[in-house]
Amino acid sequence: MFSSLDHAMMQRAITLAKNGQFTTAPNPNVGCVIAHGEEIVGEGYHYQAGQPHAEVFALRAAGERARGATAYVTLEPCSHYGRTPPCAEALVKAGVGRVVCAMVDPNPKVAGRGVTILQQAGIEVQVGLLEADALALNKGFIQRMKTGRPFVQLKLAASLDGRTALANGKSQWITSAPARADVQCFRAKAGAILSTSATVLADDPSLNVRWADLGETVQQHYPEANLRQPVRVIIDSQNRVTPAHRLVSLPGKTLLARANADTQTWPEDVQQLEVATEATGQLDLVALMETLAAQDINHVWVEAGAGLAGGLLKAGLVDELIVYQAPKLMGSDSRGLIDLNGLTEMAEVPALAITDVRMVGPDIRITARINTTEQK
Amino acid sequence: MFSSLDHAMMQRAITLAKNGQFTTAPNPNVGCVIAHGEEIVGEGYHYQAGQPHAEVFALRAAGERARGATAYVTLEPCSHYGRTPPCAEALVKAGVGRVVCAMVDPNPKVAGRGVTILQQAGIEVQVGLLEADALALNKGFIQRMKTGRPFVQLKLAASLDGRTALANGKSQWITSAPARADVQCFRAKAGAILSTSATVLADDPSLNVRWADLGETVQQHYPEANLRQPVRVIIDSQNRVTPAHRLVSLPGKTLLARANADTQTWPEDVQQLEVATEATGQLDLVALMETLAAQDINHVWVEAGAGLAGGLLKAGLVDELIVYQAPKLMGSDSRGLIDLNGLTEMAEVPALAITDVRMVGPDIRITARINTTEQK
Repeated sequence: MFSSLDHAMMQRAITLAKNGQFTTAPNPNVGCVIAHGEEIVGEGYHYQAGQPHAEVFALRAAGERARGATAYVTLEPCSHYGRTPPCAEALVKAGVGRVVCAMVDPNPKVAGRGVTILQQAGIEVQVGLLEADALALNKGFIQRMKTGRPFVQLKLAASLDGRTALANGKSQWITSAPARADVQCFRAKAGAILSTSATVLADDPSLNVRWADLGETVQQHYPEANLRQPVRVIIDSQNRVTPAHRLVSLPGKTLLARANADTQTWPEDVQQLEVATEATGQLDLVALMETLAAQDINHVWVEAGAGLAGGLLKAGLVDELIVYQAPKLMGSDSRGLIDLNGLTEMAEVPALAITDVRMVGPDIRITARINTTEQK
Repeated sequence: MFSSLDHAMMQRAITLAKNGQFTTAPNPNVGCVIAHGEEIVGEGYHYQAGQPHAEVFALRAAGERARGATAYVTLEPCSHYGRTPPCAEALVKAGVGRVVCAMVDPNPKVAGRGVTILQQAGIEVQVGLLEADALALNKGFIQRMKTGRPFVQLKLAASLDGRTALANGKSQWITSAPARADVQCFRAKAGAILSTSATVLADDPSLNVRWADLGETVQQHYPEANLRQPVRVIIDSQNRVTPAHRLVSLPGKTLLARANADTQTWPEDVQQLEVATEATGQLDLVALMETLAAQDINHVWVEAGAGLAGGLLKAGLVDELIVYQAPKLMGSDSRGLIDLNGLTEMAEVPALAITDVRMVGPDIRITARINTTEQK
């Protein structure tokens, strides 16, 4: 169904799409290549919400040469009038002869509409080329569209024996400078960074993206002038965060997730978000995630303590774990990584599947997803 | 100093040496290649203590063609009359023209003597080709010769959050079948498997090598008829192991390390080893290791609980850690991996250096050595 030329062109479109990985939120990453056979006549990618879509840039570059060409798009062209007119209609108007999409629109309400517009105009449409790569480009956007919840990445950092701090609380710099730079890159891709008032009160962290720490490779594709700060979301059911905490006055939006808002004066960029509570008095984490998705947050990066880590896991809200392990041993009386109190059978133990293991400086980084099928 | 041909020949000798990795204990692994230029006229390796050395096999194969040839040996040829006459003299007698050794004898009392015998006979001798590979072949033998202590490998197995059992003790099959097979291969290479009476009383383990579990690749080079059982060493300061425990009657030698021997009747293969105790009543682990080395044990593989793991680490007796991590999360109230009670400063935390990370089935296997230089 697809030729090796088709594969090469779609691979190029996916590579282009990645140019927007730090900046398109809440929009998806999309790349587009317009070609006559081997000759590329136009290409483009979506860079930032509010700017034109990938297809528009590619069509502009192609001009008259779009007529009769094949357009390779990593996502089904849009069919709705938003900030820009629908891309499906732009492709029709430009007279392309064939459209290849890696995947259909993940929003079940509109999936297939772009394809229909193209087909009704007599354009040949094929879907599914390099679909797995296209899905990986937009894990957050796709999950939000399909489930109404963001994609949740839980960051953990510990010694090789799974400890985060000595019994007396001392813990500075368990992981290395390269691992901390790696964390900056994950933060930079996320729509929100989620933490707790316990972490804010203990460490007074910034929970922001520091461009200087992103590393040269990222910096080359992500100029400092375009820096986008993820929304900081702090779970603060007892209203313990104050306007004096560091992150409150840093550039970027901060959401304080609370049972009840207080009446203090907060900077304009700080919002109090009232979230339902459970019988325990803790915030309902499912409700919180649905609220964040409703605020167009696709992708949540969690940096918090053992309590929130365990709470999110127990609520089934974690999609992926990013675990940094430092080459240190801290011993059994040191503090644990995840609170999952009260497990009494091995069958209750959350099972993961490791999808990637690599060294980051002297540390190990493990990527794992929740495993829904039982292991041998 | 060394040509690419020299490198290729020594590489071949090292590959040959590995054929003895399961069987030569307490002797070292040695390989030998005898060649005229590119033409190999004889090769051999040491396979089992009591059998001829690598050089003898290679000289036998070469016959008259050894005259004027170059002999590549992974270890300095021996200079002493043991179970076999000295290999250095055999090389002289055969008339080889040149000898290349990867490393000198690690025993400081005899290092260089083999080289001297060869040189006094007018043979050109060069030392140090692929020395790092030769050192890696015989980590245990070398350490015993140099320090009077065995090379100690500490095996640990835990969930991704560093837990070995639930709070109630349940733990069966945290790691996978492939990881357990991998453990069998490590056991098979060791001179001794070290554990504790606590483990024996809790699990009644076999602590042996099961040929059927070694995997096809190993089995092809290690016929069942040659199976060598490592010595089982059980730390049993309170004489809790009884003749009814499973490992007591399995094939292979068992040493019960005790403060005082008891007067029970034990099978012939079981020996009670009296070891000095510390003020705490626990056995002196340094004394134990020195006693094992004096019994020609080069390489100790440790499978025990958090107590012995911590004790060995604190005593500075661990050379390498082999850590299996299962893709599971067991939570902070589950049991820890290593007891290192009482650390109060991060500067006291044992620092490691990761030397290898790989997947073994669904699990991760991390190899680490103790890092003596501080990390950034």
